[in-house]
Amino acid sequence: MKAAILPSLNSKWEIQEIQTPKPSPNQVLIKINASGLCYSDVHLTEGGIPFPLNFPLILGHEPAGEIVEVGESVTTRKKGDRVGVPFLQKTCGRCEWCLRGKRIFCEQQQGTGVALNGGHAEYMLAYEDATMLIPNEISYEQAAPIFCAGYTVYSGLRAADLKPHDRIAIVGIGGLGHLGIQYSKAAGFHTIAITHSKDKEEMAYSLGADLVVNNGNDLKLNGGADVILVTSNSYKPAIEAFQGLRPEGRWVLMGVSNEKLTIDPLSLALSRHQIIGSQQNSPEYLYEALDFVAKGKVKVMTETFSLENISEAYDKVANGKVRFRAVIHN
Amino acid sequence: MKAAILPSLNSKWEIQEIQTPKPSPNQVLIKINASGLCYSDVHLTEGGIPFPLNFPLILGHEPAGEIVEVGESVTTRKKGDRVGVPFLQKTCGRCEWCLRGKRIFCEQQQGTGVALNGGHAEYMLAYEDATMLIPNEISYEQAAPIFCAGYTVYSGLRAADLKPHDRIAIVGIGGLGHLGIQYSKAAGFHTIAITHSKDKEEMAYSLGADLVVNNGNDLKLNGGADVILVTSNSYKPAIEAFQGLRPEGRWVLMGVSNEKLTIDPLSLALSRHQIIGSQQNSPEYLYEALDFVAKGKVKVMTETFSLENISEAYDKVANGKVRFRAVIHN
Amino acid sequence: MKAAILPSLNSKWEIQEIQTPKPSPNQVLIKINASGLCYSDVHLTEGGIPFPLNFPLILGHEPAGEIVEVGESVTTRKKGDRVGVPFLQKTCGRCEWCLRGKRIFCEQQQGTGVALNGGHAEYMLAYEDATMLIPNEISYEQAAPIFCAGYTVYSGLRAADLKPHDRIAIVGIGGLGHLGIQYSKAAGFHTIAITHSKDKEEMAYSLGADLVVNNGNDLKLNGGADVILVTSNSYKPAIEAFQGLRPEGRWVLMGVSNEKLTIDPLSLALSRHQIIGSQQNSPEYLYEALDFVAKGKVKVMTETFSLENISEAYDKVANGKVRFRAVIHN
Amino acid sequence: MKAAILPSLNSKWEIQEIQTPKPSPNQVLIKINASGLCYSDVHLTEGGIPFPLNFPLILGHEPAGEIVEVGESVTTRKKGDRVGVPFLQKTCGRCEWCLRGKRIFCEQQQGTGVALNGGHAEYMLAYEDATMLIPNEISYEQAAPIFCAGYTVYSGLRAADLKPHDRIAIVGIGGLGHLGIQYSKAAGFHTIAITHSKDKEEMAYSLGADLVVNNGNDLKLNGGADVILVTSNSYKPAIEAFQGLRPEGRWVLMGVSNEKLTIDPLSLALSRHQIIGSQQNSPEYLYEALDFVAKGKVKVMTETFSLENISEAYDKVANGKVRFRAVIHN
Repeated sequence: MKAAILPSLNSKWEIQEIQTPKPSPNQVLIKINASGLCYSDVHLTEGGIPFPLNFPLILGHEPAGEIVEVGESVTTRKKGDRVGVPFLQKTCGRCEWCLRGKRIFCEQQQGTGVALNGGHAEYMLAYEDATMLIPNEISYEQAAPIFCAGYTVYSGLRAADLKPHDRIAIVGIGGLGHLGIQYSKAAGFHTIAITHSKDKEEMAYSLGADLVVNNGNDLKLNGGADVILVTSNSYKPAIEAFQGLRPEGRWVLMGVSNEKLTIDPLSLALSRHQIIGSQQNSPEYLYEALDFVAKGKVKVMTETFSLENISEAYDKVANGKVRFRAVIHN
Repeated sequence: MKAAILPSLNSKWEIQEIQTPKPSPNQVLIKINASGLCYSDVHLTEGGIPFPLNFPLILGHEPAGEIVEVGESVTTRKKGDRVGVPFLQKTCGRCEWCLRGKRIFCEQQQGTGVALNGGHAEYMLAYEDATMLIPNEISYEQAAPIFCAGYTVYSGLRAADLKPHDRIAIVGIGGLGHLGIQYSKAAGFHTIAITHSKDKEEMAYSLGADLVVNNGNDLKLNGGADVILVTSNSYKPAIEAFQGLRPEGRWVLMGVSNEKLTIDPLSLALSRHQIIGSQQNSPEYLYEALDFVAKGKVKVMTETFSLENISEAYDKVANGKVRFRAVIHN
Repeated sequence: MKAAILPSLNSKWEIQEIQTPKPSPNQVLIKINASGLCYSDVHLTEGGIPFPLNFPLILGHEPAGEIVEVGESVTTRKKGDRVGVPFLQKTCGRCEWCLRGKRIFCEQQQGTGVALNGGHAEYMLAYEDATMLIPNEISYEQAAPIFCAGYTVYSGLRAADLKPHDRIAIVGIGGLGHLGIQYSKAAGFHTIAITHSKDKEEMAYSLGADLVVNNGNDLKLNGGADVILVTSNSYKPAIEAFQGLRPEGRWVLMGVSNEKLTIDPLSLALSRHQIIGSQQNSPEYLYEALDFVAKGKVKVMTETFSLENISEAYDKVANGKVRFRAVIHN
Repeated sequence: MKAAILPSLNSKWEIQEIQTPKPSPNQVLIKINASGLCYSDVHLTEGGIPFPLNFPLILGHEPAGEIVEVGESVTTRKKGDRVGVPFLQKTCGRCEWCLRGKRIFCEQQQGTGVALNGGHAEYMLAYEDATMLIPNEISYEQAAPIFCAGYTVYSGLRAADLKPHDRIAIVGIGGLGHLGIQYSKAAGFHTIAITHSKDKEEMAYSLGADLVVNNGNDLKLNGGADVILVTSNSYKPAIEAFQGLRPEGRWVLMGVSNEKLTIDPLSLALSRHQIIGSQQNSPEYLYEALDFVAKGKVKVMTETFSLENISEAYDKVANGKVRFRAVIHN
């Protein structure tokens, strides 16, 4: 099969012809149809995320495709199933967090496109119980970005402990943010985009935003927000946005970087604000994130590339030129 | 191996010598050391619970023992592991509830000692990912009853959405209830037993109850409770106990039977009461239920029987003569 | 002033000319513009609700109007303020529930139109701190029914601990239910009306329902609901609706009567259902209930009557002929 | 009456003889028996908290005493009542937050000992509805510090959304922290004190701590904590303590200062940590904070001073020499 191989840290991805792998008893082999290329792929390639990588490595943690072969003890998946695979695939099964059923905190976790080969290839293995069925209403191209970007932003929304009548603001109108606006609207909330870009303002309205403001002060003058979803990994505008966070408001961080966060404690305590760290959470959220797409309430904006042209995709993602999710299409 | 076999509905259990089973790739073989005999076993034998049974069947959904063989694709368990198995073992993996990670609602679930052979035998198979490691501090005899009785009552406690300063009352001081008192105390709550039996009153105090009352009216006169845990399957005293439920109180049902529940709606609405149906919930609760035993804060009261004498155990359980959990010891 | 007087239990309301009352230091005098006539008024007149009444009594617990006089120590209200008054006005201030700030559970509470004269008159007194400002966007006629019907149904919605993606079904498309459909939609939920009336089916769709089903079985076949709001006080269809309640579903009771509720415990426990008693809760919910009207997302369907013709209104309400809220207009 | 007067910012408190005030219709006059002197009094005197002060001012926001006179419209309090007054007394009653019943967020709030004269005097006025009855089991001296220190720390504990089996660590074993240890134990949690002082280690154990660790790394090695209560206003050890915060842990900030908080976002997101700003919250928490003292489960460590010697108390508090709450005793 053809695959995009990362030979070592900080090197270039290479398209190589390698042996198609065989599933172990509890794995399935997926013929990849679409594989999202996330900014994290750039980050991982450059060593910016402290995860141990197994080189040579195939990246890609937004894979979607059809099962073409199943291991001998597989009972819940079958040939022809349309599936995707989120980041978390395999854990130790023995630590406290595995025993508690909160496997995302397992320190020996093996992630798609990190410890295990990912989706930037013609085929990919996945553990049976890590795969998620894709609703028939969704194309692979629409499904793929939900397995990281959609899952992440919807988990962040759910982490905010939302109540009817809440007003939700999104900082960072990009790969995650353009989905955040749509999920917030799909879930019925008054939705506000925070951006100083005139260009993105129109985009935000077209995605369903009820209001677009320039910054936190502007947000405050326009009624504030009960929830701020921080989807970018540049924190300056997100910190400034605290100004527009209403009492008992929740500021949800899902875009991570190596910047430090510096917070004013007085306002935090007096307004009873909460800062909530979020990442992909329960499978329930992935299920719902896909379902909102299946119901036509959320639509990923994608740019597609062939596997052969994956370097072009990489460069556009690295330079922030993709609107908004790059998908490798086989 | 020797096993207690139920040939068909409403028949007698028979000790038979049968072939020791072999694990499939993702199963383990457990040498059973202790197997709790729960009143549900009687109920199942008599056809009182509407679950489809696979005859001839080995019952026993509180098994605990040592892994002696693992299937070829097993990675998270190994020979020598001390494990127990709760009721839920295998589900379809494809329905909405499986995809959401809430497999207990799968309509094709296969339960230990119901669709799959259980623990009343010398050996038992279990799916790798359904087994739970038992802390070293706990004997098999203490561990076994936690896999149903302890798990159920602790899930009920957790379902009540407890807050500091809550007062918790337990109706039904039996197999579940005697653990309920201890879990409530272990978690730090003011704990009240409701019983009209003088004999059980002393028992309840010795288990750590702060107060023992005769009934709901008595409860009301003594300050009431914020939570009532209904652990018996005879509802009359539990319904009467509503009188002592404070505003915003939660009445948690975990003992099920074929009796109907009849409730006063006016008081329900005016006092903002909640009636909460509960069963074994997340693995997190099983983990914590075991951990409280490991920490010495909860101790199961057991009567042990040999596998050969399992009929004696059955009769005592059927007649409510066991204080409080019968355990078959190999 | 003119007022509708109830001389004693089970008697007829009489329009009388009585002395306009004077506010005590912490009261305000309201010139009533609109006063909702709720089915509870019929119930109270007939002795069907066990609240102690002070005869001769002016009923009406949905009053809205303008403040025309304030007591000497009043600081937060002033002449000209547009206000309404919910049921709960005055409590003992000394019991546990008053000290906890949960005054609705005070056993000595004094309610509008029950212990204290209500809104079916030209003027009405109210305690300063019991009044709620009415947003300028709302007419008195639209505001009045929110102070009981709207407040009640929105509190029920909030009591259900809603999560994005929940599906909400409403049983009983009447005074409360027609608002329930609108609040559920305004809050962004997939909203289902349960009614076997062809006539109400169209109504429900016009109010914004996404789906109308005949009964619980029909609901089940159409995907079920995570929340069922029981707004009627005839429980048969509401109990039947349990069939369509999904796992972990919440069944919220807000319409109370003297019927008993009979529930199946097995399904309650296995599906982890919750039965939630609800009544008017925190002022926060009244605030939001009014705000959704102010934003144009909820519109009360009213029939108006003059104070002189209040008997006609009473008869129509008593016979269930009003669509959907009767308002006395001065 | 005698009172400790602060003439202006950054000046010295002076004991003066001034006119005893008269209650307005909805106020009560309290003969102060005990008045806690909190570090905030120092902070306010020095201009370190940005609240507008009304000079000349009597500070003291932990007053406790007996009602000796009531205003003419007072109905819920009477002469002889034993009461205390928390910080929040009077708000505008008209803003969104007042209408929502969340008056602590009113921007025109008037606080005890800040906008309104406080407890460092022989008598003090308070609005009827701002007073809290003190249980008979508690002395005034024990009650007073609960109205700020106890209320604050218990609100912080409640803000952490506690679950059974949680482990709670307290950073800062001082005025708030010594109560935090006791409230955590009273509520049944495994309680850990974080301190590098040998002296405070013994103290923490004597207050009921299950474990004392030196710092966050030490905490991590000893099993970590699910909740960290930050009771000091020096954040260095509190930030370091993040190391010992378990996944899904909550870090509750209640001690405020002008230091900035600098946080690592990666660990926040990956561990799904929450940072929760907390201050005195619902009256329910004050009620429970007092009740735990009444039940003998929490005991304030106080040093008492006469009103004449309040300067001595001030100096000791300013220099951190009081163990742990200074109380002015009349």
